[in-house]
Amino acid sequence: MLDLATRVYNHNFRIDPIVRSLLDTDFYKLLMAQMILRRHPDVSVTFGIHNRTRSVRIADEVDIDELREQLDHARSLRLGRGEATWLRGNAFYGTRRILSAEFIAWFEQFRLPAYELAVRDGQYELSFHGSWLETTMWEVPALAILNELRSRATLRGLGRFDLQVLYARAMTRVWEKIERLRRLPDLSIADFGTRRRHGFLWQDWCVQAMQEGLGAHFTGTSNCLIAMRREVEAVGTNAHELPMVYAALAEDDAALAQAPYDVLRDWQQDYEGNLLIVLPDTYGTTGFLRDAPDWISAWTGVRIDSKDPIEGGEEVVAFWTSRGCDPREKLAIFSDGLDIDTIEQIHAHFHGRMRIGYGWGTLLTNDFRGLVGNRLDPVSIVCKVSEANGRPTVKISDNPSKAQGPEAEVERYKRVFGVEVQAALPVLV
Amino acid sequence: MLDLATRVYNHNFRIDPIVRSLLDTDFYKLLMAQMILRRHPDVSVTFGIHNRTRSVRIADEVDIDELREQLDHARSLRLGRGEATWLRGNAFYGTRRILSAEFIAWFEQFRLPAYELAVRDGQYELSFHGSWLETTMWEVPALAILNELRSRATLRGLGRFDLQVLYARAMTRVWEKIERLRRLPDLSIADFGTRRRHGFLWQDWCVQAMQEGLGAHFTGTSNCLIAMRREVEAVGTNAHELPMVYAALAEDDAALAQAPYDVLRDWQQDYEGNLLIVLPDTYGTTGFLRDAPDWISAWTGVRIDSKDPIEGGEEVVAFWTSRGCDPREKLAIFSDGLDIDTIEQIHAHFHGRMRIGYGWGTLLTNDFRGLVGNRLDPVSIVCKVSEANGRPTVKISDNPSKAQGPEAEVERYKRVFGVEVQAALPVLV
Repeated sequence: MLDLATRVYNHNFRIDPIVRSLLDTDFYKLLMAQMILRRHPDVSVTFGIHNRTRSVRIADEVDIDELREQLDHARSLRLGRGEATWLRGNAFYGTRRILSAEFIAWFEQFRLPAYELAVRDGQYELSFHGSWLETTMWEVPALAILNELRSRATLRGLGRFDLQVLYARAMTRVWEKIERLRRLPDLSIADFGTRRRHGFLWQDWCVQAMQEGLGAHFTGTSNCLIAMRREVEAVGTNAHELPMVYAALAEDDAALAQAPYDVLRDWQQDYEGNLLIVLPDTYGTTGFLRDAPDWISAWTGVRIDSKDPIEGGEEVVAFWTSRGCDPREKLAIFSDGLDIDTIEQIHAHFHGRMRIGYGWGTLLTNDFRGLVGNRLDPVSIVCKVSEANGRPTVKISDNPSKAQGPEAEVERYKRVFGVEVQAALPVLV
Repeated sequence: MLDLATRVYNHNFRIDPIVRSLLDTDFYKLLMAQMILRRHPDVSVTFGIHNRTRSVRIADEVDIDELREQLDHARSLRLGRGEATWLRGNAFYGTRRILSAEFIAWFEQFRLPAYELAVRDGQYELSFHGSWLETTMWEVPALAILNELRSRATLRGLGRFDLQVLYARAMTRVWEKIERLRRLPDLSIADFGTRRRHGFLWQDWCVQAMQEGLGAHFTGTSNCLIAMRREVEAVGTNAHELPMVYAALAEDDAALAQAPYDVLRDWQQDYEGNLLIVLPDTYGTTGFLRDAPDWISAWTGVRIDSKDPIEGGEEVVAFWTSRGCDPREKLAIFSDGLDIDTIEQIHAHFHGRMRIGYGWGTLLTNDFRGLVGNRLDPVSIVCKVSEANGRPTVKISDNPSKAQGPEAEVERYKRVFGVEVQAALPVLV
């Protein structure tokens, strides 16, 4: 029997919104925003979209008016009453009240700030200028909107059965990966795929598939809205934007050298336990670990995000050992361009030697490779902070393909952080 | 928004009926029933289920009470008013009023007759005794019920995502076959998969996929209900039961030798055009064609159903040529255990030499092989007439694996029809 009311109601939408809630973002944005609100409420920055996959001309694929409509719709959102209740009442990483009353009060009045949009050479120049606290909240929704609009542009040309079989194939692909994951002993894996997802409903499906397929070995999702609806953990810690802004604000080379550790010193005053995960690669993992103060070895773990995962894992095992820690009590989180093959390789190499967690992103929530030619293949698109209080930000990374910043500044940072010759790895996603 | 009425209504069903309409049967049963009503209304026969795949113990898999419920439900069905209207108003094979007012009047008062059910050695002995006209109508629903109950018994143990991915895989498999079919020039293919289908909804999905994927190259379905709902042709002609009953009723060897041709003589008085398809293999194709009167070469085509398709096709090409007909004006219909590989082979061999049609059955509507171990693999289960007016029926076939009848009678038939040594082919489906 047709549900007439629902059908009529659905046809009343002016658009089909991609982002329908301010919680449709990654949990670590809230943790970082709370730290920014406490400590750096007056810093101004610029965030901007950058498509590393230059061969894909997104502005030719995605209509600019549709993009504006979606961005404008996201700007109309406010935190819902039930959403605020969930943030207040939920235990994150087993701890209640991680988010302060002050932060939630700020979030309740928050709206996404203005954006600037232009087209150059087939790419969108989408940027956000203003308060760090506000502009940082654009990262995830802006990327999710661009990626889903790109999917929709391709899907629009398909027939009803082509669509059904497309999703049948994609579901089969995800499920076969999950069946392989099931065989890994002591697996802990989370969904980190919000920003690059094929679409919201697809990410939601992937999370449910992981829940059913992996049970307690699926440790959660970075997406707050899906975590709330599916009653799983919201997970994540922090990102490169923290050391990048701290570094840009440093007054001299000595302060610059300390900036990455200053971030962690601040962070550990605010958070504890599983939130104490070092992200060491912003200015090169090797130098970071070499110069790290001893209290950093007391942190719960390290996230390995741009170095070859075996090499990066060995490096942190050696670091912990050199500082007198037992790596088997430490946690390494792998989160860089993972797919089932790399997860299996990492697991085969490190299982039993340290605790392992996986943050699985794009190739969980957007592996439609080859299903409509290459038109649904994911692209490596990011939203990065490019300046803070008028000074350019710099990222070195362990993989030169992910570096950013003005050349002279990059050279200065390399000198200050003692970065040596690096091997470039291809950036797939 | 939840459609409360639908939800409450659905929960009111005592069972989930498999066969919900008397039109959920193959069209050729109606054509044959009309001929039986006209010419043999007083013949009594026995039909019985036979599972050729003895290794699968269906009675261990399917609960006997559920089987009874489904059979009893089918017995409660009557032809609906809209269904009768469709039979009256529809053009079959481009011809209106193929089904007479007399036949439709009979069908409107028809109910499926009583059945007998027992279990022996892990198999159901399900049989139907009585009027040929009535018992013949059990063949397709009885098989569809047994096959779908078998599917359901396996599906019951699966979780929600296992189910979703199971169907995703099966859909992908069907669609990949359709994509290969698209490449075949001058393709004509129909769905013959009612009796062995995985389930009604699945057959309905397969038909829609064939419609979307093949357009006019999909020439229809044997299933009347699906043909009506999806607005495609209902297709099919006749089956082995006609010569088998005619042969059993023959009074002596001379009459027996003529029986297969008597069937066709009667048939062509009632039907024309694309309904004039010879099914020559009941007592061996070679002898049938050798002894065939010339008027049979004037028929539209031949259905090749138990011989190796290449060999059988070559044999009918030689037959037409020897009778002075141009094979390119003749139609060969292949319908025995087809799958995409065999279809491609047949097409590569015969395309351009004669007109070709495919009646694709089990491996269209029930190819779940290997998807839940082997528990959803189709079995070769048939419902055959075993006696007529107290005399045993006999089938020789071109494939000894498909032969049936008491040994002495089989020997007599072989002598009468001049059947020589035959090569057994495996019966997959």
